[in-house]
Amino acid sequence: MIVVMRPGSTQADVEHVVQLVKDFGLTDHVIVGTDRTVVAAIGDKRNVDKSAFEAYAAVEKIVPILAPYKVASKEVKSEPSLVPIDKNATNVIGGKKIGVIAGPCSVESKEQLLEIAHAVKEAGAIGLRGGAFKPRTNPYSFQGLGEKGLELLAEAREATGLAVVTEVMSIDQVDLVCKYADVLQIGTRNMHNFNLLQACGRTDKPVLLKRGWSATLDEFLLAAEYIINEGNQNVILCERGIRSSEEYVRNTLALSIVPAIKRESHLPILIDPSQGTGHAYMVPAMSKASVACGADGLLVEVHHDPEHAMTDGAQSVTPATFKQMMEDLKPIAAAVGREA
Amino acid sequence: MIVVMRPGSTQADVEHVVQLVKDFGLTDHVIVGTDRTVVAAIGDKRNVDKSAFEAYAAVEKIVPILAPYKVASKEVKSEPSLVPIDKNATNVIGGKKIGVIAGPCSVESKEQLLEIAHAVKEAGAIGLRGGAFKPRTNPYSFQGLGEKGLELLAEAREATGLAVVTEVMSIDQVDLVCKYADVLQIGTRNMHNFNLLQACGRTDKPVLLKRGWSATLDEFLLAAEYIINEGNQNVILCERGIRSSEEYVRNTLALSIVPAIKRESHLPILIDPSQGTGHAYMVPAMSKASVACGADGLLVEVHHDPEHAMTDGAQSVTPATFKQMMEDLKPIAAAVGREA
Amino acid sequence: MIVVMRPGSTQADVEHVVQLVKDFGLTDHVIVGTDRTVVAAIGDKRNVDKSAFEAYAAVEKIVPILAPYKVASKEVKSEPSLVPIDKNATNVIGGKKIGVIAGPCSVESKEQLLEIAHAVKEAGAIGLRGGAFKPRTNPYSFQGLGEKGLELLAEAREATGLAVVTEVMSIDQVDLVCKYADVLQIGTRNMHNFNLLQACGRTDKPVLLKRGWSATLDEFLLAAEYIINEGNQNVILCERGIRSSEEYVRNTLALSIVPAIKRESHLPILIDPSQGTGHAYMVPAMSKASVACGADGLLVEVHHDPEHAMTDGAQSVTPATFKQMMEDLKPIAAAVGREA
Amino acid sequence: MIVVMRPGSTQADVEHVVQLVKDFGLTDHVIVGTDRTVVAAIGDKRNVDKSAFEAYAAVEKIVPILAPYKVASKEVKSEPSLVPIDKNATNVIGGKKIGVIAGPCSVESKEQLLEIAHAVKEAGAIGLRGGAFKPRTNPYSFQGLGEKGLELLAEAREATGLAVVTEVMSIDQVDLVCKYADVLQIGTRNMHNFNLLQACGRTDKPVLLKRGWSATLDEFLLAAEYIINEGNQNVILCERGIRSSEEYVRNTLALSIVPAIKRESHLPILIDPSQGTGHAYMVPAMSKASVACGADGLLVEVHHDPEHAMTDGAQSVTPATFKQMMEDLKPIAAAVGREA
Repeated sequence: MIVVMRPGSTQADVEHVVQLVKDFGLTDHVIVGTDRTVVAAIGDKRNVDKSAFEAYAAVEKIVPILAPYKVASKEVKSEPSLVPIDKNATNVIGGKKIGVIAGPCSVESKEQLLEIAHAVKEAGAIGLRGGAFKPRTNPYSFQGLGEKGLELLAEAREATGLAVVTEVMSIDQVDLVCKYADVLQIGTRNMHNFNLLQACGRTDKPVLLKRGWSATLDEFLLAAEYIINEGNQNVILCERGIRSSEEYVRNTLALSIVPAIKRESHLPILIDPSQGTGHAYMVPAMSKASVACGADGLLVEVHHDPEHAMTDGAQSVTPATFKQMMEDLKPIAAAVGREA
Repeated sequence: MIVVMRPGSTQADVEHVVQLVKDFGLTDHVIVGTDRTVVAAIGDKRNVDKSAFEAYAAVEKIVPILAPYKVASKEVKSEPSLVPIDKNATNVIGGKKIGVIAGPCSVESKEQLLEIAHAVKEAGAIGLRGGAFKPRTNPYSFQGLGEKGLELLAEAREATGLAVVTEVMSIDQVDLVCKYADVLQIGTRNMHNFNLLQACGRTDKPVLLKRGWSATLDEFLLAAEYIINEGNQNVILCERGIRSSEEYVRNTLALSIVPAIKRESHLPILIDPSQGTGHAYMVPAMSKASVACGADGLLVEVHHDPEHAMTDGAQSVTPATFKQMMEDLKPIAAAVGREA
Repeated sequence: MIVVMRPGSTQADVEHVVQLVKDFGLTDHVIVGTDRTVVAAIGDKRNVDKSAFEAYAAVEKIVPILAPYKVASKEVKSEPSLVPIDKNATNVIGGKKIGVIAGPCSVESKEQLLEIAHAVKEAGAIGLRGGAFKPRTNPYSFQGLGEKGLELLAEAREATGLAVVTEVMSIDQVDLVCKYADVLQIGTRNMHNFNLLQACGRTDKPVLLKRGWSATLDEFLLAAEYIINEGNQNVILCERGIRSSEEYVRNTLALSIVPAIKRESHLPILIDPSQGTGHAYMVPAMSKASVACGADGLLVEVHHDPEHAMTDGAQSVTPATFKQMMEDLKPIAAAVGREA
Repeated sequence: MIVVMRPGSTQADVEHVVQLVKDFGLTDHVIVGTDRTVVAAIGDKRNVDKSAFEAYAAVEKIVPILAPYKVASKEVKSEPSLVPIDKNATNVIGGKKIGVIAGPCSVESKEQLLEIAHAVKEAGAIGLRGGAFKPRTNPYSFQGLGEKGLELLAEAREATGLAVVTEVMSIDQVDLVCKYADVLQIGTRNMHNFNLLQACGRTDKPVLLKRGWSATLDEFLLAAEYIINEGNQNVILCERGIRSSEEYVRNTLALSIVPAIKRESHLPILIDPSQGTGHAYMVPAMSKASVACGADGLLVEVHHDPEHAMTDGAQSVTPATFKQMMEDLKPIAAAVGREA
């Protein structure tokens, strides 16, 4: 950490800061520049609240040097993590094969789910997404079928062999969802729900962690560490668009996070082009872009009758579009040394 | 809701949309404009996923007409709500008096808490804030004293008469926190944690609901409705800054939400100038601005030794600064017909 | 345009709004819904300030129906525009071939420019970028070589056959830059500089228009219309990243604008992955993503010695990286029916 | 500047960076920490492109220590600048008196302008705002009366004694606008138009500089330096709202910039609550907040018939509202040691 002193700081000010550095159990190193004095504080103290230095009036700002994340970083584990998404580890996320998880936003009925599940399986998906517990901004909206939805997902797995990926919204749902799901999804609204992260970290299920609406890269990886620190190494990251000032999309899909994650972390990352744009017509183009820039897979909303979908109809592609898109992804995956 | 058709839409397209409107149990009303045809869908169906219309290719966009919130709105209750913050309703938020809740970011020790509690009480605060369970972005940071912290808060209430406001992070903490707290605080990271909102809505404690980092006004009021719909009318809103591209603050304090809330809702609103800026030196100025634009109160971080605070030292004011600030608020409150 | 009345509006309020609609030369159409009355105002009046309706207290909001842009839209011209970038129209942007324009951020010297120009030409670029007039946030930074830089660019064109693309910052530079350049570049800081847009619109040079830091899609296309309306049809759009709350990039590259532009406009669009990320290491990945999602080309910063570049070293790739990247783009272009 | 090396950097990497530091004419200072090595580069070289260091692969990031601005900073001039806004310096911005500049968004006609000018003068304004050249996003919108508008503004000055504040959009308008105006306004769209900044810096008129839509504090002050460096010390800053993800306002008024500017710079700062919110109903509340947090004045849109205003009707207050607001500001100004 670097402590930058304000212009005009006195020797006493610098000594005060040096003492604070020592109070924190760190080693000080003073550098007198032409316009500013800075105090470097040496030592690895990730648990210290460094902002406290800024409480001293002669301090202009604190500049952290170390990235705050650790076990999610490449410094700790340099080779990419492969995360199995089903019991037998038939399929993994993070390997050569682009892993596509597809399905309806919400589980609505047996007929709906099976029709879509068969379609996405046939088109090449390895996982089935579908919400049984739905986090809805609007309390008056459809909230999901609950356990009934989980049962239908398990049935669809039986019928298709697809791994089941479904959201868990609350710590009291973790056991129940674990009973049915292959992968626990933590939604964007819960990325900062640390108790839920920890609860999922104590299960033996892989966790698909979606980035918060305005989460920084640091926060995203630290959320992953909350899970990993409980003993669960199987974390799959997922970018799904951020809040911005753009008006023509529901969210701004921040694809540059893919090369950033690949540089900083060993964890695999998926892209959700459905949530990430809000428009079905953009999904094929942005899926191609995702694969082209190095994403390990996709999370795609598919519905056989989007106009009557109970949730997210506007951003759900039809099975026919999905099938074509999966075909179109093949040469792109090949172009970046992957398989789709 | 208004359905805007794309240019070049055919009569058949319009009829298709009219049928969809009917499928949704709404009444259609077609308007043929000079450049666009629009279909108005009449009827109050807040539970319908209107985005589904956009799945039809000839539809350009859907424009909602109704605000999505209801029980938090002035349409349902036009007079301002007064929310009591202690058992005997000695103090309320939302009335003539500006309600100031102050205290340390985290409860660190008995000495620390009592010293600060006495200081803020003397300066005019009506509530004591202090975190026992701390939602920390960084898993390696201090996570709060837990129940021990709650006990200390209760002790401080005994000693000072201040109402205790403290955060509840998870549904499994609700009962415990209710045992000690007067007001349940839901933090910015949990504004979209609907299960937690509902769990707090089933208690008899008032709830201080902080706005999410990038929550819209609609989402903020809908989060309040999750609480109210469980039977708990006592919701206090709190603006605490949003994520933006600004670099000189930790968050951008969006004070314009105060007149917006006053226009749309009967719920009281506090401002947190500490979280809302990230800098202690800005807190007095932004507190004055908050009162001047109509906020019902403040939530302020105060620490007697910010340089050694375990959390949020950079944005904590000292008791002396707080006392001066409380004095300075008086004429401003008077200028807007309030008391401080 | 739809005028949404506030709840509780009276018949007199509605009549007042109807009169306003007539004052504006539009036709009114009143729809009484279950919760709200709305007044549709029919007629194509793009020149009217519709926000004025919101000045009436009983009006809740105005919802525009028509997109504000016209000549840039597909409604006016449905086939894609091909924009020639050199005198003989040897190369165009917007056709089957992915058009790559590459070169240094700033023209620094003859040796620098020629070395880079030859390298990018050989790797497959069709245009040479290089700033002679540099818009620098910091007045103390290098401001470009001015006319000397333009002369060097013209020399490089002679030597390589590459079309010269260079920025014009001010109306008094337009004639001078036209003397040397093949394509006039308008930078992100000037997207809203309407006088400059118009001045460029009165030349016979194609214009490469970069999106403003926080410009909406509507604003972007309207800026293009400022150029087109002066008689210059040859506008090339360029996305270069927006300001957001992300911290790991210099800008957030908003690639979803590619399918959006392709849906709304006939104008071609390039992507600038250098400015759009701020990091050289991200440029190859994001270039691939750009081509994969349908962009018509790229604008790439290349420097043979980035560590000593006078501007933008951090985001400039070396000629070797550029060459490899151009190779890697070929199968991706082929996968989306293009050529690179 | 601090150069942070990536983990795993070798001694040779560090030596390479040390050499780069020397190449830049700076002095190096290497600090070996527990997890990272950093190289401090000492010396005041504001004109160097430090990002170039990041081009070296073993460099993780560059951390600037010095603020980039200089002559606008308090380091150079510690007492607040008083900026006269008329020829005889009858009125200044930055002194004890809150300076309010008010008037219509656009000059529409003599009757309109005089009616409003008299009204705002009577209510206590010291300057008259009014656009003659209007930067309109939409090329089909009303573009202002041009010189005719300037003549009317001069007439209104004769009639009322108010200083005339009006926008200059382009370097070729500077002489003309100087002929009529007392203060040159540079709009938000032109904050990064460095040629215009410099042209205004070469006049003897004070300049009211509005913050760009997504400008950082650094960029805002550097834009002021472009003006000051040409010899014109009389710069008035103006915050007018930033682009964000908020939906209930046209812009997010970032009032925390007031204490930040007061800490960093000697320049006065006004707030524009009209542009800064987009809603007339918010203007009185946000004007009070502006004065309460230390702003030196306001820029307010006033129209006697907002429903028929040619521009910005939605955010223009009536003369009656303005008068009341000016009264209401008095006790708030007094509370912060000012006069209104």
